[in-house]
Amino acid sequence: MKRFEEKTISSTTIYKGKIIDLRVEDVLLPDGKSAKRELVDHPGAVAILAITDDKKILLVEQYRKALKRSIIEIPAGKIESGEDKELTAIRELEEETGYGSCKFTYMQSFATSPGFANEIVHMYLARQLYKVENPAQGDEDEFIRILECTIEEAEQMVLEEQIYDAKTAFAILYAKKLMEC
Amino acid sequence: MKRFEEKTISSTTIYKGKIIDLRVEDVLLPDGKSAKRELVDHPGAVAILAITDDKKILLVEQYRKALKRSIIEIPAGKIESGEDKELTAIRELEEETGYGSCKFTYMQSFATSPGFANEIVHMYLARQLYKVENPAQGDEDEFIRILECTIEEAEQMVLEEQIYDAKTAFAILYAKKLMEC
Repeated sequence: MKRFEEKTISSTTIYKGKIIDLRVEDVLLPDGKSAKRELVDHPGAVAILAITDDKKILLVEQYRKALKRSIIEIPAGKIESGEDKELTAIRELEEETGYGSCKFTYMQSFATSPGFANEIVHMYLARQLYKVENPAQGDEDEFIRILECTIEEAEQMVLEEQIYDAKTAFAILYAKKLMEC
Repeated sequence: MKRFEEKTISSTTIYKGKIIDLRVEDVLLPDGKSAKRELVDHPGAVAILAITDDKKILLVEQYRKALKRSIIEIPAGKIESGEDKELTAIRELEEETGYGSCKFTYMQSFATSPGFANEIVHMYLARQLYKVENPAQGDEDEFIRILECTIEEAEQMVLEEQIYDAKTAFAILYAKKLMEC
């Protein structure tokens, strides 16, 4: 959809990084005026709502430098260059939790911060989980703690703001709906 | 929570913009090694799940330069410097939809992209809506189209990827739960 399209007049790359790039663009608005847009490019990410046979959700606690605190999220990770999204999700689930899944399905995708970033999170649902014998190891600079929680425990963590993340808030509502069916 | 804290060794400001700033930091990991973090500072935002008396959700279509397309979202906007979050939310609802609310309550907050940004979205629920006579006008550089949709219509837009936004995906599940009660 191109409604209200903003055409690029000029684009300046401010930073090219390991994970994100930053561009500043002058754009032409639908009324002929111009405006400035600060835009972050991100390779995209996957996130996995993994539910055990006894109806627990797998969560990971991780320090997030941007927030200056650790928060609890569903397993997730960025897509490596050229990597298939579903394979990324299967890999991240194994690396972060040590689990594999016999029933791995795509849920939906969404932008996380469309006002300034193009990051898309692709959500997967993992059921029929099993422990992988020698699970692949995750990123060297990633320190995480795994939790298995009931929906009620997860909801309590939302109230206490230990869960404080959009994709996880979405996943908890989704899981609740699933488990009620 | 400070578990797995990453202490800042050095911090370099790359860009200070109108809406976002970019910093690159060298951090000390829990195992004593170091790593680089690319961090976007954002003032935070509000988003409003507004439901009419006939159980329709208010949505707005808007072009998002970062995504190079227009998407449909719940009303939202960034917090202006020094502005109270709830007042921001009431203002954004009026500016973007022309509605006021007699039953305006806080829902929850979450980070949208904790891997690289500190943006927090504060969610509000607006019920008992009424048309404001001379609504405040929004940002000059913002062009939007207002939609009033049933939950079923919103879910269809998710399938068609017209709704493609984390806070809106969360809001639709939340609204569905509310309307079923």
